[in-house]
Amino acid sequence: MLSRNDCLQADQQDPLARFRQQFALPADTIYLDGNSLGVLPQGALARSQQVIAEQWGQGLIRSWNDAGWFELPARLGNKLAALLGAGADEVVVTDTTSLNLFKALAAALRIQQQAHPARRVIVSERDNFPTDLYMIQGMIDLLQQGYELRLTDEALPLEAALDDNVAVLLLSHVNYRTGAMYDMAATNALAHRHGALTIWDLAHAAGAVPLALNAADADFAVGCTYKYLNGGPGSPAFIWVAPRHQDRFWQPLSGWWGHARPFEMGSDYQPAGGIRRFLCGTQPIVSLALLECGLDIALQADMDAVRRKSLALTDLFIELVEQRCGEHPLTLITPRDHARRGSHVSYRHPHGFAVMQALIAAGVIGDYREPEVLRFGVTPLYLGYTDIWDAVDTLKRILDSGSWDAPQFHRRGAVT
Amino acid sequence: MLSRNDCLQADQQDPLARFRQQFALPADTIYLDGNSLGVLPQGALARSQQVIAEQWGQGLIRSWNDAGWFELPARLGNKLAALLGAGADEVVVTDTTSLNLFKALAAALRIQQQAHPARRVIVSERDNFPTDLYMIQGMIDLLQQGYELRLTDEALPLEAALDDNVAVLLLSHVNYRTGAMYDMAATNALAHRHGALTIWDLAHAAGAVPLALNAADADFAVGCTYKYLNGGPGSPAFIWVAPRHQDRFWQPLSGWWGHARPFEMGSDYQPAGGIRRFLCGTQPIVSLALLECGLDIALQADMDAVRRKSLALTDLFIELVEQRCGEHPLTLITPRDHARRGSHVSYRHPHGFAVMQALIAAGVIGDYREPEVLRFGVTPLYLGYTDIWDAVDTLKRILDSGSWDAPQFHRRGAVT
Repeated sequence: MLSRNDCLQADQQDPLARFRQQFALPADTIYLDGNSLGVLPQGALARSQQVIAEQWGQGLIRSWNDAGWFELPARLGNKLAALLGAGADEVVVTDTTSLNLFKALAAALRIQQQAHPARRVIVSERDNFPTDLYMIQGMIDLLQQGYELRLTDEALPLEAALDDNVAVLLLSHVNYRTGAMYDMAATNALAHRHGALTIWDLAHAAGAVPLALNAADADFAVGCTYKYLNGGPGSPAFIWVAPRHQDRFWQPLSGWWGHARPFEMGSDYQPAGGIRRFLCGTQPIVSLALLECGLDIALQADMDAVRRKSLALTDLFIELVEQRCGEHPLTLITPRDHARRGSHVSYRHPHGFAVMQALIAAGVIGDYREPEVLRFGVTPLYLGYTDIWDAVDTLKRILDSGSWDAPQFHRRGAVT
Repeated sequence: MLSRNDCLQADQQDPLARFRQQFALPADTIYLDGNSLGVLPQGALARSQQVIAEQWGQGLIRSWNDAGWFELPARLGNKLAALLGAGADEVVVTDTTSLNLFKALAAALRIQQQAHPARRVIVSERDNFPTDLYMIQGMIDLLQQGYELRLTDEALPLEAALDDNVAVLLLSHVNYRTGAMYDMAATNALAHRHGALTIWDLAHAAGAVPLALNAADADFAVGCTYKYLNGGPGSPAFIWVAPRHQDRFWQPLSGWWGHARPFEMGSDYQPAGGIRRFLCGTQPIVSLALLECGLDIALQADMDAVRRKSLALTDLFIELVEQRCGEHPLTLITPRDHARRGSHVSYRHPHGFAVMQALIAAGVIGDYREPEVLRFGVTPLYLGYTDIWDAVDTLKRILDSGSWDAPQFHRRGAVT
């Protein structure tokens, strides 16, 4: 049986423990929701003051050049590339994950249309994050060209869903609800054998698991920077395209930031070379600039060490729940296989919503996802082994006492 | 002949003079570029600290509910509505102007497609802001349904461009380069007589001129919040749809924020009622929240008084240039007619770029736009009559001395 002392010892030997001091964490809180909104880097407040008071307030319009605002999407994309297994000039940070999915999907469909015009099926997973499916549906509805969304599920596994009609396979690398992770290289190979291009949503993967987009032979990827990358609420998303597509892709959200010579103000769109053509309109500079604070911390860490600790912490969570909460109706829905697990752990519980509210009230912040899922995000840069012990201890106390079954824990807000 | 003393007297009698203290303006600068990037409201720095340190740092994920983050696009849209002549629940603040143009265009084309499927022409102005044209071109290329962009210019006036094939008329209310303004009500009536729907880009109009979207019978409008609304660099844009279209419009950038029940996480997109279906992905909260500081100042001002002062200041600018710089090759390209003038004044000069760099070096910040255009934005909330005098005085000095013709004023940056 594990003890809290074992966890204290593990924290003392943790080579990543020093990263915690780079974040401003609320007192008396164990934050297991970094997979939804990452925490505040210590440097972010000073950075915001610099951007707002100096660059905006004093520099004003000159800051587009002098403070490098116009270059931020490409400069931050180049920094982020190291965490994605991508190269220079392959990533930009811009817009939202949903919008970048639309751009990547349009680009992939156009490539296929030119080579294999009969391919009209887009494959995704029924359990994918909803916005991924909604954006595909919006595209299909807009195009009115006979495209079709085919969803994998228990009745239709991925292998059976891929055939010669498939243009694009669009998947989340790590599932937002279960934490299940695809083998990206194997999945790309499978898709390519069937002639499909792949688009990866890395929202729950970037900064959480080692990524090797080029080595895994992916085609397109998009993702989120406000989860494991600690970019701040709604910080802009990213998009990557494989070098082999860089010179031939096209995308329809062709705003002036993606123009080859935006300040010539010509009336015809001429796409910029390479990844910059994925840019569209003027970016929210304050939110964009703040992302660099979280990114710079992540770049100091050895991603393999982050992965080892992530697996150790999720293993610990699973083991402690088994040891200490075994009599309660918690069903683990996260894969036990390390190769198939991202960086969060999820359980179904018949009263998941109320249990999570009780946990939050007790200072253990995870989140709840329909249906009845308790979700616990594990972020190795600011969580320790003792945090996991204390979180499960609180969960045990709430379940043993039944304190979750109080009226205040059943009330739902706009965002649950 | 006007004197600087006349300007000092006008400032003393200016009922809007008190607004200047609500902004943090750089010393020794006359800022005539508020039509490109508005200035810093005094309250914005404290607001950013609240959002970053308290809401993000301490509230973390709870702030989506507790700090009202999720409601920001609709709540700020409702505030902004007063400046647009729009009603409650008709406006959301979200994404960028380019992206909102794409949404509005898709919505308008779909409405037309259902009623008048033969209409396949989109009319805009050759001299429109480029991103407006680029987004139309992207849409046409994406749809592959035989749509066509028809551009008005000297050879093809608007009246001649409208016929029974036109689905949508997309115009900027105030031209970004010349400052020329359309009569919105008359233009809507003209378009409607020809069966076309209208989309207005209000980037250079919102906060600068009185707007009455409903009274003028417009169909759709989008616009920018970082110019005359002082929202901060790249603060999110807005979109409005006329109440008569609210229950029937559709748009393809159908992300989860536009879903009727986003947190049920269903796999089928069901649009939210009304304007919220124009939302797509997670918004950049820090940049979005900061907009409220500028908005709150604008809402304190009487828009008719703002308009009177704007016209008085642009009249003054034009008059002083005539009186004092008459021997230099400056060609006014802004309409003298008040009814056709927005809130900036533009001149062509054969060496416009260098002249503007010399002005900026001397502390008079306007901007330059191809081809050879000097652009001077007039923002009545923080500019006075003496500022205009001093700006023209500096222009006169630079032109009289020829000091603009120095090597450093001919060098171009990435953003000119």
